[in-house]
Amino acid sequence: MTHHSDNNRIIIFDTTLRDGEQCPGATMTLEEKLQVAEMLDSMGVDVIEAGFPIASNGDFEAVEEIARRVKRATVAGLARAGDKDIDRAGEAVRHAAHPRIHTFISTSPLHMKHKLQMDPERVVEMVSQSVARARNLVPDVEWSSEDGTRTEIDFLCRCVELAIKSGAATINIPDTVGYTTPEEYERLIRTVIERVPNSDKAIFSVHCHNDLGMAVANTLAGIRGGARQVECTINGIGERAGNAALEEIVMALKTRHDVLPFETGIDTRMLTRASKIVAAATSFPVQYNKAIVGRNAFAHESGIHQDGMIKNAQTYEIMTPESVGVTKTSLVMGKHSGRNAFRAKLEELGYTLSQNQLEDAFNRFKDLADRKKDIHDEDIEALVDENIATAFDRIKLVSLSIVAGTRGPQRATMKLDDNGHIFCDEVEGNGPIDATFNAIKSLVPHEANLELYEVRAVTGGTDALANVTVRLSSGDTIVTARGTDPDTLVASAKAYLGALNKLIARGARIHATAPGE
Amino acid sequence: MTHHSDNNRIIIFDTTLRDGEQCPGATMTLEEKLQVAEMLDSMGVDVIEAGFPIASNGDFEAVEEIARRVKRATVAGLARAGDKDIDRAGEAVRHAAHPRIHTFISTSPLHMKHKLQMDPERVVEMVSQSVARARNLVPDVEWSSEDGTRTEIDFLCRCVELAIKSGAATINIPDTVGYTTPEEYERLIRTVIERVPNSDKAIFSVHCHNDLGMAVANTLAGIRGGARQVECTINGIGERAGNAALEEIVMALKTRHDVLPFETGIDTRMLTRASKIVAAATSFPVQYNKAIVGRNAFAHESGIHQDGMIKNAQTYEIMTPESVGVTKTSLVMGKHSGRNAFRAKLEELGYTLSQNQLEDAFNRFKDLADRKKDIHDEDIEALVDENIATAFDRIKLVSLSIVAGTRGPQRATMKLDDNGHIFCDEVEGNGPIDATFNAIKSLVPHEANLELYEVRAVTGGTDALANVTVRLSSGDTIVTARGTDPDTLVASAKAYLGALNKLIARGARIHATAPGE
Repeated sequence: MTHHSDNNRIIIFDTTLRDGEQCPGATMTLEEKLQVAEMLDSMGVDVIEAGFPIASNGDFEAVEEIARRVKRATVAGLARAGDKDIDRAGEAVRHAAHPRIHTFISTSPLHMKHKLQMDPERVVEMVSQSVARARNLVPDVEWSSEDGTRTEIDFLCRCVELAIKSGAATINIPDTVGYTTPEEYERLIRTVIERVPNSDKAIFSVHCHNDLGMAVANTLAGIRGGARQVECTINGIGERAGNAALEEIVMALKTRHDVLPFETGIDTRMLTRASKIVAAATSFPVQYNKAIVGRNAFAHESGIHQDGMIKNAQTYEIMTPESVGVTKTSLVMGKHSGRNAFRAKLEELGYTLSQNQLEDAFNRFKDLADRKKDIHDEDIEALVDENIATAFDRIKLVSLSIVAGTRGPQRATMKLDDNGHIFCDEVEGNGPIDATFNAIKSLVPHEANLELYEVRAVTGGTDALANVTVRLSSGDTIVTARGTDPDTLVASAKAYLGALNKLIARGARIHATAPGE
Repeated sequence: MTHHSDNNRIIIFDTTLRDGEQCPGATMTLEEKLQVAEMLDSMGVDVIEAGFPIASNGDFEAVEEIARRVKRATVAGLARAGDKDIDRAGEAVRHAAHPRIHTFISTSPLHMKHKLQMDPERVVEMVSQSVARARNLVPDVEWSSEDGTRTEIDFLCRCVELAIKSGAATINIPDTVGYTTPEEYERLIRTVIERVPNSDKAIFSVHCHNDLGMAVANTLAGIRGGARQVECTINGIGERAGNAALEEIVMALKTRHDVLPFETGIDTRMLTRASKIVAAATSFPVQYNKAIVGRNAFAHESGIHQDGMIKNAQTYEIMTPESVGVTKTSLVMGKHSGRNAFRAKLEELGYTLSQNQLEDAFNRFKDLADRKKDIHDEDIEALVDENIATAFDRIKLVSLSIVAGTRGPQRATMKLDDNGHIFCDEVEGNGPIDATFNAIKSLVPHEANLELYEVRAVTGGTDALANVTVRLSSGDTIVTARGTDPDTLVASAKAYLGALNKLIARGARIHATAPGE
């Protein structure tokens, strides 16, 4: 055992903004990334992996801006083993209070042969070169052996020893393909720590994917094996079946402290809010029966369970809803609520808005209060989340009217504002949504496929705000956006325009035109 | 080790229709339950837990009808330890080719004291009485120690021994509250099998909940400890955070056969279809990054991964999409497709419909083909699933027309058919959905809360079918229904009416009235 393993403090390394954002459709805007980073910092995450700076200018800017803003947590940027990657990552994180470069290379026979097309000796050289180069740029370097669980053990130990010798203070051994089992992974981590002579000079880290449904159990097994950093994401989002969910790991450590005597720095009462912010920013809904943060996680239906719950909550509840920040929805605001009450409510919900954002959100709140009697916390969250997401949109909805029903065809009349220019058209479609989207296509001709269309009511009741998610793809770019309005059709138009604006921000050439132009 | 444990065949016990259906909002109609049972039987599930017969007449009838129809799998009915429960379960399953009564009682100190309010000696008596009574009704009896993982080990062993002596051939030790960890659960199962003298006369079973994200890993650990039956659900639905997911357990056993050398009888190529059927029947969506069956489970976005995938799929893929039945969506049907082609397509998709159902589905298919150019497999599935769900609905939508948009108020004009009587009204609302639902409330006055409203496009493209989910609660009853139509508003009306019809079927007294009556 290393001296680090004697320590029972677990370092929480969140990669929602890197591995999470990397999954198809989860693209976030800069504003959304900043909001997520701020939330992660304030809930007590130790390391925020903010992105992959070499991947695009947008990624670079996001990492750089997060590095400037986050004061408490370490901010990490990901880099492959090449010089350009590492230099770009170093540049992106250099203004952070606690910068880290996280560099990786594949070490499994399969990856070395087919992906890297390098022989093992070349990979060994790359390990020392990449870590040393990163170490020249920042004092805190993490090295990962990609596809670690399918790597030959002697070769893995050799690379780990070299990475530590070259200056890596954190060694991550990821289960990149979600392949391992708890007993196997525990043994792997323990073996590496035991066999690598200088392992006491590094903290070992685990990074698990959920392809076989075992990411959380594998992560905890890694801790038992001696790891003291865990890499995870809010809601478990990530490539394919996702990563180990931060909220599940943290609550397992807390609830089963008797057999897993480890501590984290996470304020667990912020887990529910964190889940909602990430669901809103990525437009990835959380399934009802998701552990910890799903809407059914603390719900009991069967008569047997309800009976037990009434007699003693502990009969079916191993943690309290309050411990993860679930609170009863309270009716709080109405049409007579003023600016100060609104600001106080936003602070209670965990938002810090600029004066302009606040003013804009307050105006939309007043509009909503005119139309909807009871305004719940969730309504305000939806409104502000949309506000944050659409702050820099170029094309905006001016007005929409619709005629629809069983006696088609359905018709939409729409007016759009593109940088101050107003365009209008009336268009038919197969259903009101089709008509609405056809109107946008007529006013702003573009090539994009609708990959996903979803509507959810923000709260119960038939007059609830509708939250619409639209995912568009154009070539290799996939973007997702939300729109919120009491009118589903208006929310749909806003969501589509939001996605279109994201495509424009990503460089797609799209211009509004008068019909027939 | 028992002789059973030497056997490497794992019995798959599916409880989607019992523990799954028991979670808030997942209520299924009889037709939906029959569809799910038929699918489970044909995919190779060994035991289908069809329901909890004493819970309601609806539950009883569903178990009885499933027992009559299922030919291959064992059909189990759940019963508490009381005589009435057991007799009712026996009555429900007696026509099954292979009937089983599954009886349970809590054995943990917390449950015995607070829930049962019995002393341990009384519980011991109940164990022998309940198992013996069930054994008089059917040859195949399973006994479960509810809250088994929080039960004192000596007491647990004593109860297990007695249950086997009384005639139980299967002993289930559930982790009712989702509390255990893999190493702990493996040890528990192994200890019980080792310490109970007659353990070789029973098959041991595990039943895991996912409250801390470890249900699948715990299930596999239980198998390592000697269990040879696993209780699980499709999509992992179930109380709170749900049960261990059947598809994850089965694919983990298949993919990691090197370290988990066990076999199941499941045709894994049916897993994707099974997931879709259960999602449709319960109206519980599957999250994008759900392992095995989520839409992102086999998707790769990041440049690094795509590059690797192109060079060799195994670099990031530990199982093939084809092995779980993921196929490329093919354009198959259009307005010129005839009845025979449609019937062949339905068979390919796994449906067996009666002549009336087929005729009805074909007419709706032709309507759809008139409005939508490309008809995908998913469109046909949505259409048929709705057909199955609404077969016995009393109140039907005749027509709907809507005026909506940014210049409210929005208006809906609706005509309904209640058992042959036609009612019509025009109503305003806050958005077109509110107006639509207000029209239903005006025509069919009732007390119900809208708990959930969701819309999803069945396939990509702006003219896709909209699939709307509506969840209503009335008193203690919660029902969920779907509606499908190219027009979101019409689909919304159908979904609300579907839920209302489910409430009526559950005994709510609801009658249509002319406005002002």
